[in-house]
Amino acid sequence: MAGKVFFSVSMSLDGFSASESMEGILATPEQRERDPRLGRWMAQWMELQAWIFPLRFFRENLKLGQGGEEGRDNDIARETFERTGASVMGKRMFDLGEPTWPAEAPFHTSVFVVTHTEREPWQRPGGTTFHFVNDGIERALDQAREAAGDRDVRIAGGSATILEYLNAGLVDEFSIALAPVLFGAGTRLFDGVDASRVALAPVRSEASSRVTHLTYAVRPR
Amino acid sequence: MAGKVFFSVSMSLDGFSASESMEGILATPEQRERDPRLGRWMAQWMELQAWIFPLRFFRENLKLGQGGEEGRDNDIARETFERTGASVMGKRMFDLGEPTWPAEAPFHTSVFVVTHTEREPWQRPGGTTFHFVNDGIERALDQAREAAGDRDVRIAGGSATILEYLNAGLVDEFSIALAPVLFGAGTRLFDGVDASRVALAPVRSEASSRVTHLTYAVRPR
Repeated sequence: MAGKVFFSVSMSLDGFSASESMEGILATPEQRERDPRLGRWMAQWMELQAWIFPLRFFRENLKLGQGGEEGRDNDIARETFERTGASVMGKRMFDLGEPTWPAEAPFHTSVFVVTHTEREPWQRPGGTTFHFVNDGIERALDQAREAAGDRDVRIAGGSATILEYLNAGLVDEFSIALAPVLFGAGTRLFDGVDASRVALAPVRSEASSRVTHLTYAVRPR
Repeated sequence: MAGKVFFSVSMSLDGFSASESMEGILATPEQRERDPRLGRWMAQWMELQAWIFPLRFFRENLKLGQGGEEGRDNDIARETFERTGASVMGKRMFDLGEPTWPAEAPFHTSVFVVTHTEREPWQRPGGTTFHFVNDGIERALDQAREAAGDRDVRIAGGSATILEYLNAGLVDEFSIALAPVLFGAGTRLFDGVDASRVALAPVRSEASSRVTHLTYAVRPR
């Protein structure tokens, strides 16, 4: 039986899934000192993701060391990982991750990168293999479904790629970790959504001490 | 003891508190037939507010008739009303409400309208009196606090007025009924928020069958 196609992201209360630039995360402390915007973008991103950094699962998966918090947030992060049989991501997300993921990239499955760049599959220790798909989002999803078997396919990001799949009617459900922060500016998760085609049905809403986990099923209108 | 200053609104998952135009709500069925956008705006607004229409409290308060749903949504709507000792609203919200509220306007307290228009207080049956304040948001709030006694002051809307109070550091907490709908376009509740000044602390998050009720305290950064 085929699994579901889903995405799962953190979002600010005002709808942003990323700050104005990811340069804040890639910058050195010296660069952040010279350009206060870099520090602000970094701080926003840290606030958005603050629920995930202390988790035991996150620390284990990114090889950050032993220990960490258990509890419902940790269970949700682990469940999201365990249901995922393959991921799809856009080229920009891959380009940002390539220099920053540890050698043992945190996917441990096949990852299909939607890109115009032709490149041989890139196999990493720990079971992650990146496949570069040059013929569009549907073909990337087909391959991911096949690789996932009866597990689910995660549209990993970024938000432009998520929106392409959502507007194409290819997403079954999604989860948002709604963070108690206002960005004011940045990249909006649902910017460009085709509201005339996408309807939502609430599946689950669960508050932890740090965020509210919201899950919706996607329905055609 | 002085009460709190709060706002309480419905918001779409992508951050909108109103559709592109309120003309959809004011239009006749014939006008909506001629201009499909009017029907779309109306439908969006109905989806956003869908949790509130069936409630017993809402029906009673707007004199729509007996009956209606009880339960947690109804309790929350009633509690929001009962905590409110006075309201503040912007001129546009007043102008939209003036022709559409029933004679017995649904506030049953003093309402302070921030406007440049000079006008004598307008007393309605059922205890609502509209006061027109011409000297700014702080003065309107002072008057509302005084009228509210030990109850709370609600910044009723619209979103531009809510944002003025939020950015001025005059809001203590707020509640959002997060509706399972994507608008794609319209009026964003937090558009123009000064994210460098406004920090949030989660107070409560509670799902009903229709929406997720989120409450945050506002903290200066």
